[in-house]
Amino acid sequence: MSLAEKILQGDIRSAARLMRNVDDNMPGAVDELKKLYPHTGKAFILGVTGPPGAGKSTLTDKLIEAYRGKGLSVGVVAIDPTSPFSGGAILGDRIRMNRHATDPQVFIRSLGTRGHLGGLSNSANDVVHILDAMGMQVVIVETVGVGQDEVEIVRTAHTTLVVMVPGLGDDIQAIKAGILEIGDIFVVNKADRPEADRTARDLSIMVDMKERSADEWLPPVVLTVAQKKDGLGSLVDKIEEHRAYLHTDGRLQRHEEDKSRQRFTDLLKERLFAQVFGRIEEEDQVRDIVQSVARRERDPYTAVEEILRSHLR
Amino acid sequence: MSLAEKILQGDIRSAARLMRNVDDNMPGAVDELKKLYPHTGKAFILGVTGPPGAGKSTLTDKLIEAYRGKGLSVGVVAIDPTSPFSGGAILGDRIRMNRHATDPQVFIRSLGTRGHLGGLSNSANDVVHILDAMGMQVVIVETVGVGQDEVEIVRTAHTTLVVMVPGLGDDIQAIKAGILEIGDIFVVNKADRPEADRTARDLSIMVDMKERSADEWLPPVVLTVAQKKDGLGSLVDKIEEHRAYLHTDGRLQRHEEDKSRQRFTDLLKERLFAQVFGRIEEEDQVRDIVQSVARRERDPYTAVEEILRSHLR
Repeated sequence: MSLAEKILQGDIRSAARLMRNVDDNMPGAVDELKKLYPHTGKAFILGVTGPPGAGKSTLTDKLIEAYRGKGLSVGVVAIDPTSPFSGGAILGDRIRMNRHATDPQVFIRSLGTRGHLGGLSNSANDVVHILDAMGMQVVIVETVGVGQDEVEIVRTAHTTLVVMVPGLGDDIQAIKAGILEIGDIFVVNKADRPEADRTARDLSIMVDMKERSADEWLPPVVLTVAQKKDGLGSLVDKIEEHRAYLHTDGRLQRHEEDKSRQRFTDLLKERLFAQVFGRIEEEDQVRDIVQSVARRERDPYTAVEEILRSHLR
Repeated sequence: MSLAEKILQGDIRSAARLMRNVDDNMPGAVDELKKLYPHTGKAFILGVTGPPGAGKSTLTDKLIEAYRGKGLSVGVVAIDPTSPFSGGAILGDRIRMNRHATDPQVFIRSLGTRGHLGGLSNSANDVVHILDAMGMQVVIVETVGVGQDEVEIVRTAHTTLVVMVPGLGDDIQAIKAGILEIGDIFVVNKADRPEADRTARDLSIMVDMKERSADEWLPPVVLTVAQKKDGLGSLVDKIEEHRAYLHTDGRLQRHEEDKSRQRFTDLLKERLFAQVFGRIEEEDQVRDIVQSVARRERDPYTAVEEILRSHLR
């Protein structure tokens, strides 16, 4: 039986193996992904993002618990804020979630930001596809920050939670500007801290300021203390409301098309580059180009144009 | 006279125009960049990064002042943490720096994270090249966060300051892991706050833990209160020390080659994709692919392989 077939039967070890194979760029890994692809599109994908220290991992942990309580299986892709150079996952957060390690209906996969030649967003997407194909009913994608990478990653989610903490200081305006567009639900976590209400009010005002048509989703602001599970019930209710909203007026289909467009263009970018770069590296051209560009004997724009001319039809 | 020629004579308005033309993808803009390229490589490039709220803009403002005091001209590229969707720069910080607006030896350019089809890192690099070619002696690249994009951007710097604030809470470990590799100098700003010494000590311990050869640079930790210019003198001294270090043992040349490699591969990735995507979009292929991928009739991996076969030689 192929890996894909075993995964379609829900085999966790095969899923873990394919994820590793994909990461290591093993030959044949993409063929397995191809076989899985027709079986994807069933899971509900929930994005959880926000600045470091907002308590995203604890919240994710409690959400796993809540969905397990409803009898649903849960996959998690956790993007670790590690170095693109040194790699290695920060284990603290992961350990917190590890109490689900013995539950076969929970599968947690951590991705560092290192070694993903095709981009973190491509890797995360492959993992989501695998979790989806193996039958996980809810897939949580947890990622730090609001950088371009993270935005791309949460774009694949049906519903995105943006997790904030009270009193973020000076730059809250800037942060808000960035996240306002990606949040379907705003969570003010650690809401037992001072200024929680003010942060929630500020967020609500900013959300309200954005122009919307009457039937458009208005992102709610939910206060939680994830550690104590305070507010978790209302949060899950809001997630369900947003999920129901997506099922109206062809929104789910549009979302699926946006995602497919993104996926296709990301993959195209990655593969085009990998193929052409592989060729010129083999011919030792890269070293020559780099040295002459560094010495200012050649400019990088012209060097690239030459490569395009000789490798594109 | 071409734009490039005027820029080489130090004309600020021509530089501003080329930056806009590059951003708007105007025809001919790349030709001007090509003409400028042989004249780059003279500026000292200083990266300033760190989490939101660390006071990077204030610090940058004081560094401009310090270098102007030494009679050096200063260019600044400030990357604004705005939405990739809504765009528009957050003006607060920029206004703080605007007191240099009447000084012709200071040129500040803000980049949002929006609309940079070729990636923010490519856009920032082009601006750095223009500032360098026009004769700015110091170019400061200020960018928020420690995401992949920001890492790529500060990679172009000769010396990178990582700016932190006291008491970042739970996730400081995670943040540190990410920034440890990119910081040549660590700045604990707002050092009049409680726990400044502890944060500095924590940072020093982590810096010391990394294995280094005897002649390798050991990143110092500097305490500052940028607002009051406290510690600015020692910071500038440390920057000078690192600059001197780079001039030993061929380090500057290696740095230049690393940068050139990065620049070449970034550009290659961008142009390859832009060219191929442009073609298939023109032929209306993209819509068909996206729809069939969304309906799970086709998988994105196979779709991309087909494109590669028909467009690569």
